[in-house]
Amino acid sequence: MCGIVGITGVPDAVSVLVSGLERLEYRGYDSAGIYVNDQSGQDYLVRRVGRIANLKSALTPAIKGITGIGHTRWATHGVPSETNAHPQYSADERFYLVHNGVIDNFEQLKSEYLADVKFQSQTDTEVIVQLVDRFVVDYEMDTRAAFLKVLHLISDDSSYAFVLMDRQTPDTLYVAKNKSPLLIGIGEDFNMVGSDAVAMLKETHTFMEIQDREVVTVQPEGVVIRDFDGNEMKRDTFRVDMDASAADKGTYPFYMLKEVDEQPVVMRKLVQEYLDDEGIPKIDPKLLAQMKAADRLYIVGAGTSYHAGLIGARLFERLTGISTQVFISSEFAYEQPIMAAKPFFIFLTQSGETADSREVLVNVKKQGWPSLTITNVPKSTLSREASFTLLLHAGPEISVASTKAYTAQVAFQAILAKALGMAMNKENAANFDIKQQLGLVAIGMQAIVDSKDELESIASRYLSQPRNAFYIGRGIDWSVALESALKLKEISYVQAEGFASGELKHGTIALIEDKTPVIGIITQDRTANLTRSNLQEVVSRGASVLTIASKHLSQPDDTIVLPDVDPLLSPLLSVVPAQLLAYYTSLGKGLDVDKPRNLAKSVTVQ
Amino acid sequence: MCGIVGITGVPDAVSVLVSGLERLEYRGYDSAGIYVNDQSGQDYLVRRVGRIANLKSALTPAIKGITGIGHTRWATHGVPSETNAHPQYSADERFYLVHNGVIDNFEQLKSEYLADVKFQSQTDTEVIVQLVDRFVVDYEMDTRAAFLKVLHLISDDSSYAFVLMDRQTPDTLYVAKNKSPLLIGIGEDFNMVGSDAVAMLKETHTFMEIQDREVVTVQPEGVVIRDFDGNEMKRDTFRVDMDASAADKGTYPFYMLKEVDEQPVVMRKLVQEYLDDEGIPKIDPKLLAQMKAADRLYIVGAGTSYHAGLIGARLFERLTGISTQVFISSEFAYEQPIMAAKPFFIFLTQSGETADSREVLVNVKKQGWPSLTITNVPKSTLSREASFTLLLHAGPEISVASTKAYTAQVAFQAILAKALGMAMNKENAANFDIKQQLGLVAIGMQAIVDSKDELESIASRYLSQPRNAFYIGRGIDWSVALESALKLKEISYVQAEGFASGELKHGTIALIEDKTPVIGIITQDRTANLTRSNLQEVVSRGASVLTIASKHLSQPDDTIVLPDVDPLLSPLLSVVPAQLLAYYTSLGKGLDVDKPRNLAKSVTVQ
Repeated sequence: MCGIVGITGVPDAVSVLVSGLERLEYRGYDSAGIYVNDQSGQDYLVRRVGRIANLKSALTPAIKGITGIGHTRWATHGVPSETNAHPQYSADERFYLVHNGVIDNFEQLKSEYLADVKFQSQTDTEVIVQLVDRFVVDYEMDTRAAFLKVLHLISDDSSYAFVLMDRQTPDTLYVAKNKSPLLIGIGEDFNMVGSDAVAMLKETHTFMEIQDREVVTVQPEGVVIRDFDGNEMKRDTFRVDMDASAADKGTYPFYMLKEVDEQPVVMRKLVQEYLDDEGIPKIDPKLLAQMKAADRLYIVGAGTSYHAGLIGARLFERLTGISTQVFISSEFAYEQPIMAAKPFFIFLTQSGETADSREVLVNVKKQGWPSLTITNVPKSTLSREASFTLLLHAGPEISVASTKAYTAQVAFQAILAKALGMAMNKENAANFDIKQQLGLVAIGMQAIVDSKDELESIASRYLSQPRNAFYIGRGIDWSVALESALKLKEISYVQAEGFASGELKHGTIALIEDKTPVIGIITQDRTANLTRSNLQEVVSRGASVLTIASKHLSQPDDTIVLPDVDPLLSPLLSVVPAQLLAYYTSLGKGLDVDKPRNLAKSVTVQ
Repeated sequence: MCGIVGITGVPDAVSVLVSGLERLEYRGYDSAGIYVNDQSGQDYLVRRVGRIANLKSALTPAIKGITGIGHTRWATHGVPSETNAHPQYSADERFYLVHNGVIDNFEQLKSEYLADVKFQSQTDTEVIVQLVDRFVVDYEMDTRAAFLKVLHLISDDSSYAFVLMDRQTPDTLYVAKNKSPLLIGIGEDFNMVGSDAVAMLKETHTFMEIQDREVVTVQPEGVVIRDFDGNEMKRDTFRVDMDASAADKGTYPFYMLKEVDEQPVVMRKLVQEYLDDEGIPKIDPKLLAQMKAADRLYIVGAGTSYHAGLIGARLFERLTGISTQVFISSEFAYEQPIMAAKPFFIFLTQSGETADSREVLVNVKKQGWPSLTITNVPKSTLSREASFTLLLHAGPEISVASTKAYTAQVAFQAILAKALGMAMNKENAANFDIKQQLGLVAIGMQAIVDSKDELESIASRYLSQPRNAFYIGRGIDWSVALESALKLKEISYVQAEGFASGELKHGTIALIEDKTPVIGIITQDRTANLTRSNLQEVVSRGASVLTIASKHLSQPDDTIVLPDVDPLLSPLLSVVPAQLLAYYTSLGKGLDVDKPRNLAKSVTVQ
């Protein structure tokens, strides 16, 4: 859950590393550091706690190099401190290593091989770099061989992307990966490596994949890829045509607000990409044929993507009649339920790099089950590895709290469910006018984002003080309540919980105190009165009750009234006020909305 | 979600009502009240906010009657206040009504028939009693006919148990129910009515069922049951042989502690009731035949019972190979997923009266699907209405926070899963030595409850101050984390959340601050290291980490080490420290452990 960049063969490695790290900051921002070597005997290590900005202000013109590695950290072992920041180095200051991932058996390696070594940090990474040093210095192995030996000693469950430098071969990056993402960038007279293409787009648009359990040496004049048995591997390159400056927040104070505002455009973009003039979905018939053959759909995701999947399951069941289940990826990875005979897997991941989901995909492939990745990032790991990939076209999402990717995932699943239902001749699907409905959704979203002043004042009145808060709803509104609560938690640090309205009274209602905010989501005919009854129960205990209700179900004292759309698509509207309430609560508290504490955008550890 | 008692034909109705209400206090304790009539022109209404004790201290010797009704309230409409307490009465003080349930269309009835009436309370109940009065006084109907007319006007979705009195027929109780529980108690020269047999056991052991949509008149000399069309119904009586004094907390300061301590005994009782000398389950073969025929098991429950079901699903899948899903009853009631061809339903409910679960059962019966109720209360509504019933034999559970009923539900599901697996010739089931394992569990539980001092000091050190806390785990440990967090919420008001360890980093980790308690549950080989990694991630953010780990996976600095049992039964041990941590946190804060605010033990509204 960190970001890595490395380069060799340029006059100013420092500025390449820093600008690459800035683009990777979404992967973690507990600390950052670089190591550069000028290949004439001078080298520099600079590390700082906190954002890249702190690192940047510590750099002087004297610090320069031709080859170097950089790292931005999301802490897994050891508190965020300068000592625990990367690059980590060996005690003799010969080897420098950046690492993204978790080494499960680092304690065992430490006690087995390095019992006599004094460690400076609490990181698993320092164990690895000291171990390379041990094999080189004490066992007289060459660096590549020592590196490979260490890789063999690391347990299979571990995850890593490593870039290693050796002062004695200062033009070379030693690279390997397992489960964590890492790409090679190919230049003229230089080559580089990074966690994500975006970190290298200023320098190159040509890339090369590295697979798990390969060892790569990167030098200015070339890249050599070998498998663990030493066989040299051939690898094609591919181009990424994205513009490095696509992600720019313009006049917005925070990316999140920009991304919330972009949602109506994203809806229209999905209509344009995936529906023809008659509103019929344009989806690969081969994909639909495989989905149609399934007796059960399995949707897998983490965090916000999991919440989008909960909505998706309702859409698939209603429009196709295929039984659909949703799983948290970190759970499904380690305990499969009794499986259907012909499962089809749908992976939801904004970044396409979520380690927990990838763990599931690896196993799904092993069992020969077909899969689809729905992602926002072309060429991402999960998009490359699934049987099929479809893109969300939501544009770069920079804010850590996901907004437009969530609504894009929900809307896209509706399109796909309609396509599949039509392929199965289901009446529900044929009658579902997705094009008209997404048009109404876009207009409705616009109306909500245009009422920002009102949402800001609601946030400051009800949400700025309390220690806790609840979103409640039933059915599809419950799924939205979970996502709404997560938004509030993530960026405003209010301990919010999303609850099935009917379940609150079975214990959790004990937490309701005078003025505890309880926000009811009411968009479904069948359950509207029941949720209102549950709100009465908490009013009776002193709660401050707010409501987000669809127009046709609204009552005079509802707090927020949503335009009417097909009830299956109501999440696309009901979540938007919740996003903005979270935004303004965070803003009102003076927090960094885009980069909440402890988090990283793309979660590439398990 | 209230308790009702009524009696006619005794010299001292007041003391019968009060002692009945004391036994019903588990159903709510926001306010209480009685109305009694001495049949010679004197009547009395006494209502008080809070516990029965408050009501009791307001009663003087002058207040007496031969017929009367009493009520203990869990507020659904309107704050707990004397005006909102029951009995509610008509403006002319002729009619008095107690009610358990929720009238969905009370606003509509009010505006249609009672626009000119001034209401004293915010309750739906007052609307009903005023409406009876309107039909009697203004439309000149007799009381039974007016009552029946009102029942016809109430929407089908509403729930109620009503006992109505009319000053002009002071020996008669007018009674009806829909969805809410109500039983008739049969005496010599007197008759009575109550939400639960337990409220009447001092007076009688002979009972008679009332069904939904029946109108009953109860007089000292007899009981007449009619359906809504006026046809008189015959009904047999049945005996309940329970002793009214079974539930006595002895020397314990709170029932909860007594019930936690009883868990080893409950395990042994289950072995004795359900296993033969060879450890083979003794389960009705007819039940097993029906379960065996199912292609999917559906476990339905609310609150703690839902959490027990999550463990049950893992047990059934592992030991029988039948796919099993668990649902929150209030969700399943209003949105069924795509169903399997041959479903079998298992209802988990301690009280056998949970309204949300009953709503599901009614529909399950309508569709002709077979069902089993697993409950602690014989003759309870869900036990009477399911195709099969099996009892938990845990003894009365009085504390609102469920402890021994949860472990009994888990252990019993293990027995049933073994029985079913054996009936299906599954090797996993044959090899699962449930008798020996439950013996080990009982010994392990005893060891944990014997270490109370240690748990008390951990609770006071880590849990007494923080606003929030997390329990985390993977797989079966996650299911226990949910239940553990609920215990802490319910009785200590700490905003605790149970989380899948791997999911925490996808947003919620933003809530981790310096000293936030995070308690990891570690009992499964496959995921132990992963949860330990997740704990490292929160340690890095300053959390105070505690661990509850099985012996064979334990490390020197684990907080609580559990004896080893079969990993499938680990929840029976890992939950016990969590129960005690919740208990001591609540105790340390000086709270009423057994009767947390806002709650009721048996939840009979939706």
